[in-house]
Amino acid sequence: MHFIIDKSQLMNGIQHVNKAVSTKTTIPILTGIKFDLTAEGLTLIGSDSDISIQIFIPKIDQEKEYVKIYQEGKIVLPAKYIVEIVKKLPSDEIEFEQTDHLSVIIRSGRTEFRLNGYDAEEFPNLPQIEEEQVFKIQSDLLKSMIRQTLFAVHTLESRPILTGVLWELENHMLKFVATDSHRLATRTSMVETLNDTTFHNIVVPGKSLNELSKILEDEPTTVQIIVTENQIQVKMKHLLFYSRLLDGTYPDTSRIIPDKFKTNLILSKQEFADAIERALLIAKDDKNNIVKFTTQEHLMVELSSNSQEVGHVTEQIQANEIDGDQIKISFNAKYVLEALKAIDSQEIRIEFTGALSPFVIKPVDHDWALHLILPVRTY
Amino acid sequence: MHFIIDKSQLMNGIQHVNKAVSTKTTIPILTGIKFDLTAEGLTLIGSDSDISIQIFIPKIDQEKEYVKIYQEGKIVLPAKYIVEIVKKLPSDEIEFEQTDHLSVIIRSGRTEFRLNGYDAEEFPNLPQIEEEQVFKIQSDLLKSMIRQTLFAVHTLESRPILTGVLWELENHMLKFVATDSHRLATRTSMVETLNDTTFHNIVVPGKSLNELSKILEDEPTTVQIIVTENQIQVKMKHLLFYSRLLDGTYPDTSRIIPDKFKTNLILSKQEFADAIERALLIAKDDKNNIVKFTTQEHLMVELSSNSQEVGHVTEQIQANEIDGDQIKISFNAKYVLEALKAIDSQEIRIEFTGALSPFVIKPVDHDWALHLILPVRTY
Repeated sequence: MHFIIDKSQLMNGIQHVNKAVSTKTTIPILTGIKFDLTAEGLTLIGSDSDISIQIFIPKIDQEKEYVKIYQEGKIVLPAKYIVEIVKKLPSDEIEFEQTDHLSVIIRSGRTEFRLNGYDAEEFPNLPQIEEEQVFKIQSDLLKSMIRQTLFAVHTLESRPILTGVLWELENHMLKFVATDSHRLATRTSMVETLNDTTFHNIVVPGKSLNELSKILEDEPTTVQIIVTENQIQVKMKHLLFYSRLLDGTYPDTSRIIPDKFKTNLILSKQEFADAIERALLIAKDDKNNIVKFTTQEHLMVELSSNSQEVGHVTEQIQANEIDGDQIKISFNAKYVLEALKAIDSQEIRIEFTGALSPFVIKPVDHDWALHLILPVRTY
Repeated sequence: MHFIIDKSQLMNGIQHVNKAVSTKTTIPILTGIKFDLTAEGLTLIGSDSDISIQIFIPKIDQEKEYVKIYQEGKIVLPAKYIVEIVKKLPSDEIEFEQTDHLSVIIRSGRTEFRLNGYDAEEFPNLPQIEEEQVFKIQSDLLKSMIRQTLFAVHTLESRPILTGVLWELENHMLKFVATDSHRLATRTSMVETLNDTTFHNIVVPGKSLNELSKILEDEPTTVQIIVTENQIQVKMKHLLFYSRLLDGTYPDTSRIIPDKFKTNLILSKQEFADAIERALLIAKDDKNNIVKFTTQEHLMVELSSNSQEVGHVTEQIQANEIDGDQIKISFNAKYVLEALKAIDSQEIRIEFTGALSPFVIKPVDHDWALHLILPVRTY
């Protein structure tokens, strides 16, 4: 392997694949990034066996020469060192020359590193994906859908299936569901499918979605997604992202979402979020973050929280609309705040069926998101 | 106590005094901030018994009314809560009303907090300082002097006196010295003294200087400093900073600074620092961060580092001047890098007396700073 590469292209590539590299693995070769140089360009791969990321840096792209190729070859280099070395090299061009299949010389300006690596033949192969179920989505939309559901997954390993986000696709409608059994977040969107792609019970690990979200671009570009029985592959230009799926059956959450309500109100999202943040200052003194919510006369809502030791807080908010019965309910303010932050709407609708039943928070502007929260029994 | 105060003035004040509040103290009242309202304005005090900070917010300053005073009084409020509450209150004005000597109501907009506090009578008094030794210095200069020496203090408690910075003042010349016995940093400056202020063996704890440095403004304003046997007081407009001094005798370091050299060279500070940062990538694999430094022909200097496991690095730098004997020396690259970062000069001079003797790094532009570093025996 012998080539000269543009520093910023290489930096960008290794920073991306590095997101799949685990520092905690017990398999030494997985702490490395695979460099594979062919006549077409350089392929970089990082993998922690759950997630794999592959980046291709072409020899020439849009008439710019990124890689000068002298001799093909491959090696696995330790991610921790190669990322730092490339970042700090003095010149805009970097030369890599393999001295044997376990080490390379890296030259830039008057700097020369000799770095020990691993045998590329021992690096695990990427999963073989058959194009079973395929759909297309814009990168910024996918990123939003992840942000708007991921926070609600279970973080403890006690119920492994709940640490992932459920993906369902039917009639061109993609739906994400996440729940930790105290609250639930859903987000749906229309997507473009090949033929009539349909799938259910596809559960993508939360950790994978977190990494995927960092890679997805904010500018809308088309992303192609292939779903198989045990893997998902996300295809972007020159980038492939793989994640294994979680085993098991995701619980049927459709039945717990109420469809009749006794109290219904509309609030400014920002005012409600600000008031909850202040109430949390006292509420978080106790682990359940309990805030009391009471509707009052003249479209007013009162929030309050109490801590024996610290003190007390009372907030009043003016609602835009209150219909139905008076309600007096307590909830975990952190769950409500996280739901509010995930909603893209100036106003939100809250629907209650009683002080002991789950309530729903929805955007007023659209129907694509729904948050369900279990109240806490205090009254 | 009953008053209405401008939110940003109060926020600024409590954020400053909060720097002296310890979260680790076993004395509950020291986790609080003392509020003391008199007819002139509000005084805030935070203290962890080593450091104390006092801020005064006047009733009126430069024709602006900051505090509306209804009833004088005092209380100690828990710092952790009051900082967050003030930050998140909705209105630009905040009303405090004491309900009894152990709690206050805080109102702003439609928000009302009741916060439990401590009895202000039990808060420790600030040290009584007599104006023994006084001098004046610009805040930005004092901040630089701290930054340029503080990094070299001993961080382990095994030699307590070395965890502070030595301050000496004689003939209007203020000198800071810090050493951890492997390297030494000094910085001197002319200051304005009242009469002929002179002191020696004043050792200010590194932790205090770290906090003081955060408070000092970057825009030059005059700061008055009073030094006593066991306390130092730093006076700014409306702000008083106190720190206890360290007990004991600081070692005499003047004798270890060599005054004759065998090799003398001038390097670009930035080029040398960049090369060392890269060498450190390999060097830090082993705990001593060892880098080898060798002068070569044609004004070249070679830096190199080796790790059995990771690999090797070689750097070449063009010196601007090399005089005297060839030198081959090894050092802890972290110490050299920290000294370089503390030096305000485009070029630096390095003076060696031999491979096993301490060497000196100095700015080329001026004589106000000197760094001494002990080499490591490897050759």
